[in-house]
Amino acid sequence: MSKIVLALGGNALGSTPAKQLELVKTTSAAIVDIIEAGNEVAVVHGNGPQVGMINLGMSIASGADDKIPEIPYPECGAMSQGYIGYHLQQAIGCELEKRNINKNVATIVTQMVVNENDPAFDNPSKPVGRFYTEEEANKLQSEGEGTFKEDAGRGYRRVIASPEPQRIIEIDVVKKLFSQGDIVITAGGGGIPVVQTESGLKGVPGVIDKDKSAAKLAEELDADVLMILTAVDKVCLDYNTENEKSLGHMSVDEAKSYKEAGEFAPGSMLPKIEACIRFLENNKKGRAIISSLENAKTALTGDTGTIMEA
Amino acid sequence: MSKIVLALGGNALGSTPAKQLELVKTTSAAIVDIIEAGNEVAVVHGNGPQVGMINLGMSIASGADDKIPEIPYPECGAMSQGYIGYHLQQAIGCELEKRNINKNVATIVTQMVVNENDPAFDNPSKPVGRFYTEEEANKLQSEGEGTFKEDAGRGYRRVIASPEPQRIIEIDVVKKLFSQGDIVITAGGGGIPVVQTESGLKGVPGVIDKDKSAAKLAEELDADVLMILTAVDKVCLDYNTENEKSLGHMSVDEAKSYKEAGEFAPGSMLPKIEACIRFLENNKKGRAIISSLENAKTALTGDTGTIMEA
Repeated sequence: MSKIVLALGGNALGSTPAKQLELVKTTSAAIVDIIEAGNEVAVVHGNGPQVGMINLGMSIASGADDKIPEIPYPECGAMSQGYIGYHLQQAIGCELEKRNINKNVATIVTQMVVNENDPAFDNPSKPVGRFYTEEEANKLQSEGEGTFKEDAGRGYRRVIASPEPQRIIEIDVVKKLFSQGDIVITAGGGGIPVVQTESGLKGVPGVIDKDKSAAKLAEELDADVLMILTAVDKVCLDYNTENEKSLGHMSVDEAKSYKEAGEFAPGSMLPKIEACIRFLENNKKGRAIISSLENAKTALTGDTGTIMEA
Repeated sequence: MSKIVLALGGNALGSTPAKQLELVKTTSAAIVDIIEAGNEVAVVHGNGPQVGMINLGMSIASGADDKIPEIPYPECGAMSQGYIGYHLQQAIGCELEKRNINKNVATIVTQMVVNENDPAFDNPSKPVGRFYTEEEANKLQSEGEGTFKEDAGRGYRRVIASPEPQRIIEIDVVKKLFSQGDIVITAGGGGIPVVQTESGLKGVPGVIDKDKSAAKLAEELDADVLMILTAVDKVCLDYNTENEKSLGHMSVDEAKSYKEAGEFAPGSMLPKIEACIRFLENNKKGRAIISSLENAKTALTGDTGTIMEA
């Protein structure tokens, strides 16, 4: 039995409610495979497309109907946790029932403390919401509608600050449920970013990297494994070139030198590698795995995926 | 020490994120007053204005931008749980810290099973979202944009189905946290309405009455008190007439005969009275209280509010 924190990428979710309801079935089957093998699982999911969709949608509506307010990013993040958590817990619950596994699954709305002086606030980098053409993006940016950047060859997207996760406010509740064998969906979208002020916590605009939040959660839960599930089955060197080479295993030191050599794309593989390094530096006996949703179960037994160990 | 389920009405929340952040401070102070007096509290909140705002907002945006999807009511309900739960748990947490009370507070995304043959689906009655003039409402209704009804003299609103709550899917997790002294925010907006199908749970369009869901929760938690906080301090007979008379105490039998005499407005005081009757019929030793947020603490000691007992 291992304690596993699973981080789900965008491909585990969907761009519309209908698509997401379909996709979470496959996602949940992969998660329940891992649970059925006897492991305890906590789930962290991304929310880039969803949080951007909600923020942009409510902003458009607010322009068209004066009774509808703009919704700031922290509140959009909270909404995305409710929306995605609902779909995931429903689908995981259904899959557990199918297999006669008697376990609870619940989504905890989660706040994540960040540092108000985090340099990320001056350098927005996290892509959110829909894709635009270069022309559309330039036009919107010139109209003051945010900062836009090219996203991994797929088009232009709005980018917002992605501060470092420091502390999970609801961690005691998460620990309590996790230690009692419940499947906890937490720190969705990396958690709602909040700063500590003299008068309490205060939401700040940003989207925290969910892989880094998953590493923080794994540390707090004293997890044995941090498993980051994404669109590719293994981490590659010379990615997307004719020399592309996939890695079955990587030490922390190797990961650091590949990182310094610029092997990993920012906003894509880089934060995943950084999250794994962080987890393994805090837990020398831990294991970090980067693999695809489809191969999650076999990656756990070491038969595929990229395994990182100290 | 009493175990209390608190149901918060719309006046405890707000019509915009900024207003809600302000209002939840007062709301949380009232809740923490009750906790400080030594009681265990679970919180249920309404979401009529918020769920309507999200649904309408995303619908307007979807018409203007083909990359933005419509968001069905169950998903809007889930979003409202994340959004409102985030504000409440942040404000309650802040108030607890101010008073040096060491307790956890967490929002659980909550699904509520309803009956797919509930007659409510053929007779929409729950007002959601913004207010319209009679003229606007008639125009929208004639354009197929939903069903509209006059809401308690305040204008016209869209109405949707409000099926009866039957079963709380996440009840085991809620019970676990509540019994360990945590403050649980659950069944927000009455819970996300789902029906049981052969292939699992499935969201259905509707908004469950949060007072009835609070009664269901109170029954499940074996609560001593169901406390419904609203805009008025006491239940009244001949409400809004020159003969108006407020009630300090009411038996279940009295409540039933007032109800039959048509004393209570549907969609307003009626569901609150029905929720209290239901709770007291399941718990003969229980106490139901209807009062205002401001007087919550004094109502608990019997010094104001309307107290109902079997």
